[in-house]
Amino acid sequence: MVRVVILGQGYVGSVFAIGVERIKNGELGYYGIPLANELPIKVENIKIVGSYDVDTDKIGKNLYEVVKRYDGNKIPESLKNIVVRKGIHLKSLRNLPIRAEGLEDDRSLTEAIDKIVEEWKKMKADVIINVCTTEAFRPFNNKEELIKAIENDDRERLTATQAYTYAASLYAKDVGGAVFINAIPTLIANDNAFLELAKESNLIIFGDDGATGATPLTADVLAHLAQRNRYVRSIVQFNIGGNTDFLALTHKERNRSKEYTKSSIVKDILGYEVPHYIKPTGYLEPLGDRKFISMHIEYVSFNGALDELVINGRINDSPALAGLLVDLVRLGKIAIEREEWGTVYEVNAFYMKNPGPAEKGNIPRIIAYEKMRQWAGLKTKWL
Amino acid sequence: MVRVVILGQGYVGSVFAIGVERIKNGELGYYGIPLANELPIKVENIKIVGSYDVDTDKIGKNLYEVVKRYDGNKIPESLKNIVVRKGIHLKSLRNLPIRAEGLEDDRSLTEAIDKIVEEWKKMKADVIINVCTTEAFRPFNNKEELIKAIENDDRERLTATQAYTYAASLYAKDVGGAVFINAIPTLIANDNAFLELAKESNLIIFGDDGATGATPLTADVLAHLAQRNRYVRSIVQFNIGGNTDFLALTHKERNRSKEYTKSSIVKDILGYEVPHYIKPTGYLEPLGDRKFISMHIEYVSFNGALDELVINGRINDSPALAGLLVDLVRLGKIAIEREEWGTVYEVNAFYMKNPGPAEKGNIPRIIAYEKMRQWAGLKTKWL
Amino acid sequence: MVRVVILGQGYVGSVFAIGVERIKNGELGYYGIPLANELPIKVENIKIVGSYDVDTDKIGKNLYEVVKRYDGNKIPESLKNIVVRKGIHLKSLRNLPIRAEGLEDDRSLTEAIDKIVEEWKKMKADVIINVCTTEAFRPFNNKEELIKAIENDDRERLTATQAYTYAASLYAKDVGGAVFINAIPTLIANDNAFLELAKESNLIIFGDDGATGATPLTADVLAHLAQRNRYVRSIVQFNIGGNTDFLALTHKERNRSKEYTKSSIVKDILGYEVPHYIKPTGYLEPLGDRKFISMHIEYVSFNGALDELVINGRINDSPALAGLLVDLVRLGKIAIEREEWGTVYEVNAFYMKNPGPAEKGNIPRIIAYEKMRQWAGLKTKWL
Amino acid sequence: MVRVVILGQGYVGSVFAIGVERIKNGELGYYGIPLANELPIKVENIKIVGSYDVDTDKIGKNLYEVVKRYDGNKIPESLKNIVVRKGIHLKSLRNLPIRAEGLEDDRSLTEAIDKIVEEWKKMKADVIINVCTTEAFRPFNNKEELIKAIENDDRERLTATQAYTYAASLYAKDVGGAVFINAIPTLIANDNAFLELAKESNLIIFGDDGATGATPLTADVLAHLAQRNRYVRSIVQFNIGGNTDFLALTHKERNRSKEYTKSSIVKDILGYEVPHYIKPTGYLEPLGDRKFISMHIEYVSFNGALDELVINGRINDSPALAGLLVDLVRLGKIAIEREEWGTVYEVNAFYMKNPGPAEKGNIPRIIAYEKMRQWAGLKTKWL
Ligand SMILES: NC(=O)c1ccc[n+]([C@@H]2O[C@H](COP(=O)([O-])OP(=O)(O)OC[C@H]3O[C@@H](n4cnc5c(N)ncnc54)[C@H](O)[C@@H]3O)[C@@H](O)[C@H]2O)c1
Ligand SMILES: NC(=O)c1ccc[n+]([C@@H]2O[C@H](COP(=O)([O-])OP(=O)(O)OC[C@H]3O[C@@H](n4cnc5c(N)ncnc54)[C@H](O)[C@@H]3O)[C@@H](O)[C@H]2O)c1
Ligand SMILES: NC(=O)c1ccc[n+]([C@@H]2O[C@H](COP(=O)([O-])OP(=O)(O)OC[C@H]3O[C@@H](n4cnc5c(N)ncnc54)[C@H](O)[C@@H]3O)[C@@H](O)[C@H]2O)c1
Ligand SMILES: NC(=O)c1ccc[n+]([C@@H]2O[C@H](COP(=O)([O-])OP(=O)(O)OC[C@H]3O[C@@H](n4cnc5c(N)ncnc54)[C@H](O)[C@@H]3O)[C@@H](O)[C@H]2O)c1
Ligand SMILES: [Mg+2]
Ligand SMILES: [Mg+2]
Ligand SMILES: [Mg+2]
Ligand SMILES: [Mg+2]
Repeated sequence: MVRVVILGQGYVGSVFAIGVERIKNGELGYYGIPLANELPIKVENIKIVGSYDVDTDKIGKNLYEVVKRYDGNKIPESLKNIVVRKGIHLKSLRNLPIRAEGLEDDRSLTEAIDKIVEEWKKMKADVIINVCTTEAFRPFNNKEELIKAIENDDRERLTATQAYTYAASLYAKDVGGAVFINAIPTLIANDNAFLELAKESNLIIFGDDGATGATPLTADVLAHLAQRNRYVRSIVQFNIGGNTDFLALTHKERNRSKEYTKSSIVKDILGYEVPHYIKPTGYLEPLGDRKFISMHIEYVSFNGALDELVINGRINDSPALAGLLVDLVRLGKIAIEREEWGTVYEVNAFYMKNPGPAEKGNIPRIIAYEKMRQWAGLKTKWL
Repeated sequence: MVRVVILGQGYVGSVFAIGVERIKNGELGYYGIPLANELPIKVENIKIVGSYDVDTDKIGKNLYEVVKRYDGNKIPESLKNIVVRKGIHLKSLRNLPIRAEGLEDDRSLTEAIDKIVEEWKKMKADVIINVCTTEAFRPFNNKEELIKAIENDDRERLTATQAYTYAASLYAKDVGGAVFINAIPTLIANDNAFLELAKESNLIIFGDDGATGATPLTADVLAHLAQRNRYVRSIVQFNIGGNTDFLALTHKERNRSKEYTKSSIVKDILGYEVPHYIKPTGYLEPLGDRKFISMHIEYVSFNGALDELVINGRINDSPALAGLLVDLVRLGKIAIEREEWGTVYEVNAFYMKNPGPAEKGNIPRIIAYEKMRQWAGLKTKWL
Repeated sequence: MVRVVILGQGYVGSVFAIGVERIKNGELGYYGIPLANELPIKVENIKIVGSYDVDTDKIGKNLYEVVKRYDGNKIPESLKNIVVRKGIHLKSLRNLPIRAEGLEDDRSLTEAIDKIVEEWKKMKADVIINVCTTEAFRPFNNKEELIKAIENDDRERLTATQAYTYAASLYAKDVGGAVFINAIPTLIANDNAFLELAKESNLIIFGDDGATGATPLTADVLAHLAQRNRYVRSIVQFNIGGNTDFLALTHKERNRSKEYTKSSIVKDILGYEVPHYIKPTGYLEPLGDRKFISMHIEYVSFNGALDELVINGRINDSPALAGLLVDLVRLGKIAIEREEWGTVYEVNAFYMKNPGPAEKGNIPRIIAYEKMRQWAGLKTKWL
Repeated sequence: MVRVVILGQGYVGSVFAIGVERIKNGELGYYGIPLANELPIKVENIKIVGSYDVDTDKIGKNLYEVVKRYDGNKIPESLKNIVVRKGIHLKSLRNLPIRAEGLEDDRSLTEAIDKIVEEWKKMKADVIINVCTTEAFRPFNNKEELIKAIENDDRERLTATQAYTYAASLYAKDVGGAVFINAIPTLIANDNAFLELAKESNLIIFGDDGATGATPLTADVLAHLAQRNRYVRSIVQFNIGGNTDFLALTHKERNRSKEYTKSSIVKDILGYEVPHYIKPTGYLEPLGDRKFISMHIEYVSFNGALDELVINGRINDSPALAGLLVDLVRLGKIAIEREEWGTVYEVNAFYMKNPGPAEKGNIPRIIAYEKMRQWAGLKTKWL
């Protein structure tokens, strides 16, 4: 059994909840889950035990009511048993057309964190998934500074994700082991302040920013070109979608977080810098969760020949990440059993856009996959 | 030094010759050559020592004159020293608007083969590259049948490639070691008749069908999907170009050879059959050597979501293969030194659409690359 | 009131029936119907009074049962009142995996035709829509030859569409006026034999081959380029789909009919010939009725610059034609009232890929639209 | 003879100059010039008599030297006779990495304007083409305010284009007739202040913003959909290029000018608002003048079916506009002869993204073309 808490009951969190329950009901197969049901811990062993949000329109509602906004199909009744609780806000939804409340509105940050830790203990959580709205943030890199910010109630310096990770470390220390999966761009698994804390606290962090959509595909296409020694001259990657995550990304600083994790692959894979335009480009409501991506890559082949690739896609954004989370929560539980406190690069390298720790970069996903299987104790497929 | 003979002085053979000489003249870098200059045998060590064709408009001309039809740039003067010789025809150009002649027009097949073997001895050839027009063919699979066909002068049963490979085996046996690179779809490295012959004769065969263009890219994109356990529902891969190879492929049986090698990747990579349309689709003269490709892939993601990818490319066809050949001739020489008679799957798996031997299938190129590096004695890049 | 008979109760015929009934039930708006409800004859005035097919799996069934195979949504109950009758087969379904029967199986062709005419009289049909499977055919161009073929029971020479049109002329003569809409590639409005017959018989023919999908879009894109005096060098238009029409088009001769009507636009619009590949390219079952199209156009701009356009589309095939038919049946009724026996180029030029009569070619659709409005007595939009 | 002055000797101005001279030398045909050589005034009658810029690296150089930066081919020698003069700057190049100078640096604005008017008189200019860098601007709409700004030397309020147009009106009044072609987004033909001035001063204004690239194509594609009554749900139009114009457009206010003229077509053509993302998206140096465009359009067809179009293009930006200018200068001369002071909607509607006057909107280009021919006294092609 893996007991899971969801932070941010939005599109991704909801598709994750629906999909897991439908699988448990035998209504859905394993497509979109990289390791399907190969792991010793089965998909059917996942149990959602808690959910947090700061949208006043969600807090206090049960999961069934909340997730049905995101999926026209039959929603599993089992979701009626979980109520969405109030989380820590810290300006997560600033500038967005959503009314928000946070535990810290009427108490100190440390009190808010303590309250959450207490709740997690009651839920007996193993894994905490962070799928909140993309944040504008500054990394800490220094554990002392981080702790000081918490103690000083420094609400300008901290983001919700940073506070939640801190809470997770307190919780892990207390119960002897836990996992924090940071599926969003805020640097956590790439921030040494948090890794240090994790190692001391029996916490495992997976992160940062779930690797879905155009970015991992670009990684593999670039690896394909690199292996033929083709010289890439320019890379364009346009992304436009109509879910609230794209809306959030129209804000400059949030966009910048995403641009950073998305474009780091270029140098990592090719070994040289290439002029590129890679970032969430716009928000267009009617596109919904099925974003439109458009990529253009121009490169030099043998004898100076100039080739061009254009890749267009229409891709369901949230199911892609939700499918990865089904693996990540189970791999997290395995990591607890192995006591690999800190982070696990082999997991991050496949599942994350910006795999922690900071000093490690991107590798082609097709290879990362095999190494991840090895770590998980599974037979490689092609190695 | 690697001494190379080209069979089929067409687009690929000509770009190969131009590129190698330009590199030797310091006019061109190593882009488009997968291993660049990492191998102990340098690109500068390649020496073209012979060339064969059956087009009466090419036979007897020097290489400089022939290759300049294919490239508007300055052609290296060094190519004036090689004269295109008459090869074995065996209906290679049947139905094409080209006047053809073959050595076998006025002698028996065995005499023609012997003549060629003698010429190769004078040239001291190490590696024979086959880049003739795509053939309609039937594999042998049985060495005795093959030998019988040669002895009986069975011109209906045999293709030029089969005859050339046979000649290469006689030659290799005689001089103690040689390489035959079959860059075209005719099954040679996948035909046990030839592999058996090769092992007995100190011949190394690389093949079949150089892996360029949409096919290896499809392999990697499908691997990318497979690793996320996305269920592929359909695959479309259109190809259209304006070089004579595309013209040749408008003939049904030639097309079928190509379709076979192109579509074998689907089952190999995904592990299940998918309805697909993958074949050279048409000929359109103004497109020239820069073909247009269009791919459509539809797949199921988590929670039943349906995603779509469309990949369009404008890709120079001949330089792509020519660049691979620059590696292949050098890897061939290494294989001679190691006396790995027969074929080398590690090489084929990266460089060939249909990697021999027959019992071995396709693997994702990104992984094949690393295994090929290992075989070549190079450090892996990401493994 | 317009009383309509459908020949060929397949995908198009079924979407037409469903759409019209849903509109009459107030369940659907007018999207996809070019003239929406601007005509004096309203969409709500259309009444389907008969249906014919030769698929044994459809004959005798009611329309409700047949059309529900094509649409997952709620089907209007009103369709239960019409029974699919047996039509004239004449090898329409030859080579397709469908068991077929025709009235002519156990009677002469003239008897079969007479039987149908009698049925139409009972139905009081105004308009007969032909949406049968694409045929391999030879035009007549000579009325006497056509009549001779009918009289001689020449089943090899005639196609079902030709026989149906002949029947329509008998019927029109008898009742004083009727319309035959030939939405398929068989030349009817472009065959003078039929036009002559029509004029003598109070028949109006609209045709040939409904203008949906990539072809009319290509017409407008080419017009766009022509108006800027850009020189088009090559045109590629790939089409692949998964409905039975695409399956039928995998047969060479049927494909040729379609290729002809599709590619005639190039010279008509540009004024010069351009090397092109324009034809139904393949069949891929999982694509269903939503075909994938891929177009590539390369052209020369000012100062010798070379530009490229690539157009990809995922387009529902049958609704596109069904929407046009909603206009065509009403325009047909107007033409009866005006007694414009023969054909009406103004209507064909907008709605048909190969607008009859034969001596008239294609014009840009955007202009054809305005002329059609003028003919229909509507105000132009932009002229 | 049409005597032409170029304002802004950048990419467009240079390709215009090269193309015209090459045509006069018989080195180039008429591709990319909409009316080719159909007009009574021939392309060969165009004479470039002056050129202005504010880039210190261009001022004082002859045209031959300046234009050769933009075209690798042989440059016509005749361009050596024209020297690039210093223009009015007014912050045109603010924030761009270019050192700029303007006549107004060491004199008042009215003095600068007078100086230019004097120069034009010496040049005996008929037509002044404005192809300066895209500006951030505010329209005037009120003639008095405009005149006051000039008189008050209000350098913050005025842009270079506004000052140049004012100069053109003084010049036209003086010589009895002249043309100002505003090929950039600044509202001039759509600003009543300037139209009023023009009518009083014997000036003809064509504008605003030359209709090249994705925008007019979108207009025609949307017209195509509108005519079939398809309901457009969303429109994406990404543009990225590597010329200095794209660099200039990375500045927010300049971008906004362009966004405005580009997106006005949607409502004009469809008749209803559609959520859209239409704007210059980014700058990527290696793409050069050959921009990459990517469009996505989703629409509802008959029976509620949902279709998608994706249009990608690789389009040479500057030649497209330069080709239009070859017509515009000649149509301008015709307008002088006809004394059509003010503006000519029939010309603007085809050649301009935002056709003046303000109260007139966009119509499908395919129809605008025919109306423009009628105005020009040419036979229509399809009407
Ligand atoms: N494919 C993908 O969708 C994908 C891939 C990688 C990363 N991500 C990341 O996943 C995150 C979620 O994406 P989504 O599409 O579900 O977005 P969403 O906007 O639908 O959901 C985010 C949810 O988080 C809630 N929230 C915001 N701040 C919170 C806080 N402080 N505490 C608790 N809840 C909070 C919001 O109210 C909302 O319900 C984003 O940060 C995104 O960048 C998504
Ligand atoms: N990217 C690629 O271009 C690519 C990739 C994989 C495989 N290939 C294969 O490479 C081959 C060559 O392609 P190409 O583009 O150079 O074609 P091409 O038509 O330009 O050249 C083929 C040449 O072979 C000659 N030839 C034909 N039969 C011969 C014979 N029996 N003996 C000697 N010469 C003969 C022809 O006269 C011609 O000069 C084709 O079979 C093609 O399938 C090409
Ligand atoms: N957008 C479009 O779908 C489009 C556009 C232009 C033209 N068309 C033409 O419309 C026709 C119908 O397309 P579809 O997609 O509905 O195909 P379909 O295969 O779904 O339907 C054709 C139907 O006609 C029936 N049929 C065949 N021969 C017949 C005969 N002799 N008498 C009576 N019925 C007969 C078949 O049994 C089948 O039910 C095709 O000829 C196609 O070329 C379609
Ligand atoms: N297809 C197209 O290229 C296209 C289409 C429509 C409109 N336009 C417009 O045409 C204009 C020119 O485009 P381009 O690609 O040639 O750009 P560019 O940057 O290459 O050239 C602009 C030139 O104008 C000069 N300039 C700037 N301010 C000036 C001033 N005040 N006086 C005189 N010269 C000045 C610059 O120094 C530069 O040489 C832009 O405003 C663009 O928006 C271009
Ligand atoms: Mg890292
Ligand atoms: Mg094999
Ligand atoms: Mg016609
Ligand atoms: Mg206007």
